Amino acid sequence: MAELCDREAVELRRLIGAGEISPVELVESCIARIESADPAVNAITATAYDRARAEAQRAEAAVRRGDALGPLHGLPIGVKDLSETEGLLTAYGSPLFADNVPAADELVVAVLRQAGAIVLAKTNTPEFGAGANTRNEVFGPTRNPFDHELTCAGSSGGSAVALACGMVPLATGSDLAGSLRTPASYCGIVGFRPTPGLIPTETRGHGWSPLSVDGPMARTVADAALMLSVMVGDDPRDPLSLGVDGAPFRSLEAPELSGLSAAFTEDLGFAPVDSRVRTTFRAAAQALEPAFGRRADFAVDMRGVDQAFATLRAVGFVAGHREKVEATPDKVGPNVSANVAAGLKLGLADVASALTVQTRVLRDFDAFLAGVDVVICPVAGHPPFPWKDWYPATIDGAELSSYFHWLALAYGPTLAGLPSVALPFGRDAAGLPFGLQIIGRRRGDRAVLAAARAIETWAGRNGFGRAVPKLG
Amino acid sequence: MAELCDREAVELRRLIGAGEISPVELVESCIARIESADPAVNAITATAYDRARAEAQRAEAAVRRGDALGPLHGLPIGVKDLSETEGLLTAYGSPLFADNVPAADELVVAVLRQAGAIVLAKTNTPEFGAGANTRNEVFGPTRNPFDHELTCAGSSGGSAVALACGMVPLATGSDLAGSLRTPASYCGIVGFRPTPGLIPTETRGHGWSPLSVDGPMARTVADAALMLSVMVGDDPRDPLSLGVDGAPFRSLEAPELSGLSAAFTEDLGFAPVDSRVRTTFRAAAQALEPAFGRRADFAVDMRGVDQAFATLRAVGFVAGHREKVEATPDKVGPNVSANVAAGLKLGLADVASALTVQTRVLRDFDAFLAGVDVVICPVAGHPPFPWKDWYPATIDGAELSSYFHWLALAYGPTLAGLPSVALPFGRDAAGLPFGLQIIGRRRGDRAVLAAARAIETWAGRNGFGRAVPKLG
Repeated sequence: MAELCDREAVELRRLIGAGEISPVELVESCIARIESADPAVNAITATAYDRARAEAQRAEAAVRRGDALGPLHGLPIGVKDLSETEGLLTAYGSPLFADNVPAADELVVAVLRQAGAIVLAKTNTPEFGAGANTRNEVFGPTRNPFDHELTCAGSSGGSAVALACGMVPLATGSDLAGSLRTPASYCGIVGFRPTPGLIPTETRGHGWSPLSVDGPMARTVADAALMLSVMVGDDPRDPLSLGVDGAPFRSLEAPELSGLSAAFTEDLGFAPVDSRVRTTFRAAAQALEPAFGRRADFAVDMRGVDQAFATLRAVGFVAGHREKVEATPDKVGPNVSANVAAGLKLGLADVASALTVQTRVLRDFDAFLAGVDVVICPVAGHPPFPWKDWYPATIDGAELSSYFHWLALAYGPTLAGLPSVALPFGRDAAGLPFGLQIIGRRRGDRAVLAAARAIETWAGRNGFGRAVPKLG
Repeated sequence: MAELCDREAVELRRLIGAGEISPVELVESCIARIESADPAVNAITATAYDRARAEAQRAEAAVRRGDALGPLHGLPIGVKDLSETEGLLTAYGSPLFADNVPAADELVVAVLRQAGAIVLAKTNTPEFGAGANTRNEVFGPTRNPFDHELTCAGSSGGSAVALACGMVPLATGSDLAGSLRTPASYCGIVGFRPTPGLIPTETRGHGWSPLSVDGPMARTVADAALMLSVMVGDDPRDPLSLGVDGAPFRSLEAPELSGLSAAFTEDLGFAPVDSRVRTTFRAAAQALEPAFGRRADFAVDMRGVDQAFATLRAVGFVAGHREKVEATPDKVGPNVSANVAAGLKLGLADVASALTVQTRVLRDFDAFLAGVDVVICPVAGHPPFPWKDWYPATIDGAELSSYFHWLALAYGPTLAGLPSVALPFGRDAAGLPFGLQIIGRRRGDRAVLAAARAIETWAGRNGFGRAVPKLG
């Protein structure tokens, strides 16, 4: 029998509600796992053990009293260190914030706690989330639990590793260029990038920008959907808020794959993809494709996406970080500085063109998905690489154009505002986890999660189950 | 008894449904009014009399058969000449499109026709909607029906004049810097700028930009709400679509003003406002304010709004018109050329700053409105001016910074993404129509329209009723 900390969130919640396990036991199990497993991987940046234990006691008492219990009642969670947490160090991976202890939770944390979740720990991230390698000056690198010399990817790397190692059953992530999808893929867990506005946030500096979103990370699709169900909401500070009801995400019914259509593509027609990734994906596609009722060829014009994404990303970085780069250049790392410098060279006309490309891609991609249920491609264009490299500089010998160019498979759907699931799908030839990306229609979040759940079940039955690391 | 063409849309629709008047009679009444009144004001750019007559015949037959009738069944409408209309000249006020006859209606026109409306005519606009003076090289100026030497404002000037003169009971408008609110104010009719996304559009070049919206124009709030009810909807091509149900807009109940709170402000704390406008507004406020149950002081930090708006507006103009300006400079007017030239001088960092200001203003302004039902200010910063002037270059002797600076009262709420009603409120000292702007919360479209309806009723009873022009 698995230890409590290794079990699924949906099951744990059921057992807590039935009084069969205590939130106190569960918190202790997670703490024990953090203490035993984290020294080797360095996923955790801060812990709130005392408060978590106190909250678990209260959660246990509430069950005994027969109180109404929230959907996440008694479940310990990890929070990515880009989110402000009441009384708990929030460093953003930056020396400038190395002593920052917020007085209050930001919205996404507050709603999780209101739903009964217990914040147990913060999880590592690159400085301000810039980059897909989780290392920074404050906490050092987070290691891939399948090979400690490799990166876990990023920027939600700490959350992905904490989940893979059983430290928490649920964790928050955020995603712009694949920041929750890529580490999910590298660590064999599930990450969900929702339609912008499904999960409201008050922290986005540019309210109408659909690039950066929060999202759930978990070990199964159902767990991610459970967590999502309480993150979904409405907030007047977020002008993209969709105001959707979250509860239906707790009753996802997986459809029959034979009733769905899919377009499989190795590269979304434009992304640089390593030949090893292509090989692994082809084998996956060859096995999975016949399970679908209908297949289509991917046909969306993705020209201009690289430049448009780089430009719009720079708009956010210049707004968010220019002052820091100019005032304290020695306390800002190379990724952030490079992004700001690149942005300052661009003109308003570049932004105007980028927005035009973005809108064209949104309309084309969404129209394509009106006739096909899901687009399926790899999550990441490159297999896990050494954490000592900041990023892959080449793919199959070809130079890449930036430190995030290798993430094009992830930022293509981002630019188009589409929801996307990173789903564990067995291992590659090197024995490392491999992730499929399942892309759905704008606001088709439930449908794409339900399809992912069906694929997850199929994968488990057909030798493509989730890879689990050997600990210690 | 008023002629049919002068009556309210809500009443006309009721009479049509009851078989008491025929859509054929109504169309003929509107045609007769266009023929008699338009030569003096030049509001109409194209007509579809034959098709309208045929559609009216079919509408009449449908009533006789007892068919289910759409919410706008048999009502003639005007369509602003920035919207593509099937088989009907759509010139955008530009020599480049002087012969453009589209094969299909754009979405906003299609939904109106599906609801039973009969497109009778197109209404004049400045070239590509750039400017608040409705004159262009193709059709010449549209005159203010209260004084033919004055402008009707713009860019939805033709629609406002057509409504004021009884040519149609309903007309479309669009609004970025007050393009439907300012002409409504100058002509004594109602214009409604909705929350971005309430009325979806497939024509916005930058899908996530909340600046430009379509909206209804009419002679009463209830008529505008009726028209709005069928424009509201959902479309996957518009990523800001709110997906709201439109039907409830047809049953707006006006609240008691004594149960509402309001903040009256002459200038939103930042806008240049002519002393004559201030005087008229003060008299209006002095009369109206005591009717409200509670008053608050306007307190929103609007610093940076002018520059942020100019920058974000330029992003749209550069994307939409740069090619035309460069390829055919002699066929593009001064406003559009100046906007593009100004935009090309700005950098990505300017856009980044503008977006930051916009988001701050949205959050502050909306938070203020969480505690106050409506903000009330003048619609326009300057009274109607000669149509031969492109725009007011000064206000009370002070130079303005651009051809749209005098519209700051309108573009403030635009930048913040708030819904806003332009409501006729008596006349100024010169006997010209005066408009109040009623600003509500984001997505509080129903509430702000209901408040406007209550103010409209109060105004009619207290000597501030709608000004009606004397026709030739």
